[in-house]
Amino acid sequence: MAEHIVRSYDNDLQGLRQRIAEMGGIAEKMLGDASQALVRHDKPLAQTVIAADSRLDVLQREVEESAILTIARRQPLAVDLRETISAIRISGDVERIGDLAKNIAKRALAIGDDVKPQKIVVSLKHMNDLVLGQLKDVLDAYAQQDTAKSLDVWKRDGAIDALYTSIFRELLTYMMEDPRNISFCTHLLFCAKNIERIGDHTTNIAETVHYLVTGETLAIDRPKNDRSIDAAVTGG
Amino acid sequence: MAEHIVRSYDNDLQGLRQRIAEMGGIAEKMLGDASQALVRHDKPLAQTVIAADSRLDVLQREVEESAILTIARRQPLAVDLRETISAIRISGDVERIGDLAKNIAKRALAIGDDVKPQKIVVSLKHMNDLVLGQLKDVLDAYAQQDTAKSLDVWKRDGAIDALYTSIFRELLTYMMEDPRNISFCTHLLFCAKNIERIGDHTTNIAETVHYLVTGETLAIDRPKNDRSIDAAVTGG
Repeated sequence: MAEHIVRSYDNDLQGLRQRIAEMGGIAEKMLGDASQALVRHDKPLAQTVIAADSRLDVLQREVEESAILTIARRQPLAVDLRETISAIRISGDVERIGDLAKNIAKRALAIGDDVKPQKIVVSLKHMNDLVLGQLKDVLDAYAQQDTAKSLDVWKRDGAIDALYTSIFRELLTYMMEDPRNISFCTHLLFCAKNIERIGDHTTNIAETVHYLVTGETLAIDRPKNDRSIDAAVTGG
Repeated sequence: MAEHIVRSYDNDLQGLRQRIAEMGGIAEKMLGDASQALVRHDKPLAQTVIAADSRLDVLQREVEESAILTIARRQPLAVDLRETISAIRISGDVERIGDLAKNIAKRALAIGDDVKPQKIVVSLKHMNDLVLGQLKDVLDAYAQQDTAKSLDVWKRDGAIDALYTSIFRELLTYMMEDPRNISFCTHLLFCAKNIERIGDHTTNIAETVHYLVTGETLAIDRPKNDRSIDAAVTGG
């Protein structure tokens, strides 16, 4: 490629990376705030999470459009093509993380201070902190193109699944103990499921970083199993 | 473009459309079978749904890779570029529909014949039939590039959301009536949520068809509202 084309192409990539960094920052903040809103019954904070989501949607569209235009204009090959494809994939995952955080915030609003055993919300916050750590690490791994770090995130997803199953059982127990717990516990069930799904998206991003750096695909079926599906039947 | 390039490009697009048609057929069958497995407690049928999902994953990767290669090789513009972008988006939605159907099948396996009020499963099947109709229609709209049909699917999503909210309330009532209902009702809550999310994906596909045909984006925030979030707090 002629030098000025190379430079334009680098500018394109730089623009994609910047937008994804901005998206990552927004998603991290949304996830942290959603969890705080749930623990502290902080309705204004929940509202800010809900409001933040539209910016993520806009940025995702921008990344997608600009990545596709880059591919069409510059015809990148090999690692450069992987950069643009990865940008599309990662922005998709981060956008959905934002949707899930927004859903947690909506449920925080709906629950209000209806939650009696505060302990269960604390377990949920712990799970959320773990996933937030995963998200930060995998976004760092992307920024630094660090495949070892991304592989580490990928492996840690099992711990989150295990925690999810234990929270799931705990919630079922509360529901069985007292029918008045059922309403808010179903919200917390969905919150826990959302956090678990955010964990899955961080794992997707880890796979994309691995693909970006090495050109190889990690196994599509990673060793995971939602044991809560059995837990619900065998009882809490 | 020279004629032979045009022809290769048409072949590329034809390949994308064929793969998406195959994906659509698999997803429709998975969704129909998952619902049957739930109603009839048919474990072997649930197993076939679970097994079918890996083919969808493979096809989605193929669509994504081949669409990106097409963009890089042929540098399509305007409507041709939209064709490839749309293929990527639609295959992503269909792949996730498969994941959700698989999750319903897993829950059908876990519940077995544990469900006492069969009536609630029938409501769920009704909701599933509606969504399956949406999926068929939107895949037809894509194959025929029929924007009126896709807009019709887009508008019908509200009915599914309303049905979801009513099933959600019904399930909460069963849970409150008898703690023995809680286990399988939480499964059915997640099944209902999965079906509602499949409805959202059909709406995404409708938006993509609209974009493909007209080059314009439908409003990102469609008028929808998950009223079940409030329903859970105000009670059944």
